Amino acid sequence: MKKGIVLLSGGMDSSTCLAIAKQDCDEVACLHLNYGQRTEERELKSFNLICDYYKIEKKLIVDVSYLSQIGGSSLTDYNIDIENPNLKSKEIPNTYVPFRNANILAIATSWAEVINFNRIYIGAVEEDSAGYPDCTIEFYKAFEKAIDLGTKPNTKIEIITPLIELKKDNIVIKGLELKVPFELTWSCYQNNEKACGKCDSCFRRLRGFRLAGINDLIEYE
Amino acid sequence: MKKGIVLLSGGMDSSTCLAIAKQDCDEVACLHLNYGQRTEERELKSFNLICDYYKIEKKLIVDVSYLSQIGGSSLTDYNIDIENPNLKSKEIPNTYVPFRNANILAIATSWAEVINFNRIYIGAVEEDSAGYPDCTIEFYKAFEKAIDLGTKPNTKIEIITPLIELKKDNIVIKGLELKVPFELTWSCYQNNEKACGKCDSCFRRLRGFRLAGINDLIEYE
Repeated sequence: MKKGIVLLSGGMDSSTCLAIAKQDCDEVACLHLNYGQRTEERELKSFNLICDYYKIEKKLIVDVSYLSQIGGSSLTDYNIDIENPNLKSKEIPNTYVPFRNANILAIATSWAEVINFNRIYIGAVEEDSAGYPDCTIEFYKAFEKAIDLGTKPNTKIEIITPLIELKKDNIVIKGLELKVPFELTWSCYQNNEKACGKCDSCFRRLRGFRLAGINDLIEYE
Repeated sequence: MKKGIVLLSGGMDSSTCLAIAKQDCDEVACLHLNYGQRTEERELKSFNLICDYYKIEKKLIVDVSYLSQIGGSSLTDYNIDIENPNLKSKEIPNTYVPFRNANILAIATSWAEVINFNRIYIGAVEEDSAGYPDCTIEFYKAFEKAIDLGTKPNTKIEIITPLIELKKDNIVIKGLELKVPFELTWSCYQNNEKACGKCDSCFRRLRGFRLAGINDLIEYE
């Protein structure tokens, strides 16, 4: 039996990842994290709407506001302005939340071990992920090894990254094929009502839709 | 400069680990986790007393009560009775909190990356850790690799496990050499006032003191 936990932020990538997990698995559960990010409320709304759409029964919403306590990112420290996108820069943008994905994967693994699930789906995108170090194939492989060694001997959990090698426009096309309700998703880092259209995440989303030749149906300022 | 974050539960192992870190490092910070365990309040009290004793200025106390939400352990799910110690059993005791140490290390790494610390000290004890899979050298090595790949290129963080190969009685002796205030520490899984003397953790502590020929000064029921 394939049983998958999907890390579902409520954005377009994780929602596409959920659609893929629904195809692959016998059972799917969804995990969402509130970490004091600026758009926490809006992302949670999208999470719940998308879970309803896919009739997900096992949901876990976890408070990891310690990531705000720790700070170090413009997503969680409101004293740091969110950087505008700069695709040519080799610098990691200040939206990077240090080692966030490891925190998320550790939580997902704990949950998977308790409910006997054997897959964790994460919609990370290497090339289009703004250079975040915890979004690379090598990192996920290393973390999978840590899971293998750090859980009970009969626990086997695989990390699945179905989007890791795609570009944003490929994800739009893939999502549409799978009938992902993109109109329910939220990507903006900045706003909770209408997307700003300017932050790194909006910029990458809009470019993806444009290159795919598809209209993005969410509202922008 | 050696800068170490010590994972300080308030128990005898992590307190000895702190004493070692104080010797090794130019600066020491302490991290404590509340995870809805039965003795949360008592452990936090010990954490604060020990930090005062060692004049620690950088402290971080993090709420990870999602580990209780997830459950699966007698430490966090009060419907499961805490197993009595059985040193001959090959089974992992039900006090195992699934993948807990990975969650803790992920948090410590996020913090270390933000405050520019380059070491994480964890007082894990392989042989005496009741078979928890996330207390082995192999697991820590694998996690260190994940840290290396999942943080910024210039971030270098080492996981230090100075007690990993010791037995409890060696830790008592080592701690006394280093003047660790064992009377301020707390090990019991069950009680908040007087230690129960019966749970796995009390049992291992008492045996350690007995084998070392030292009196344990905390109160037992």
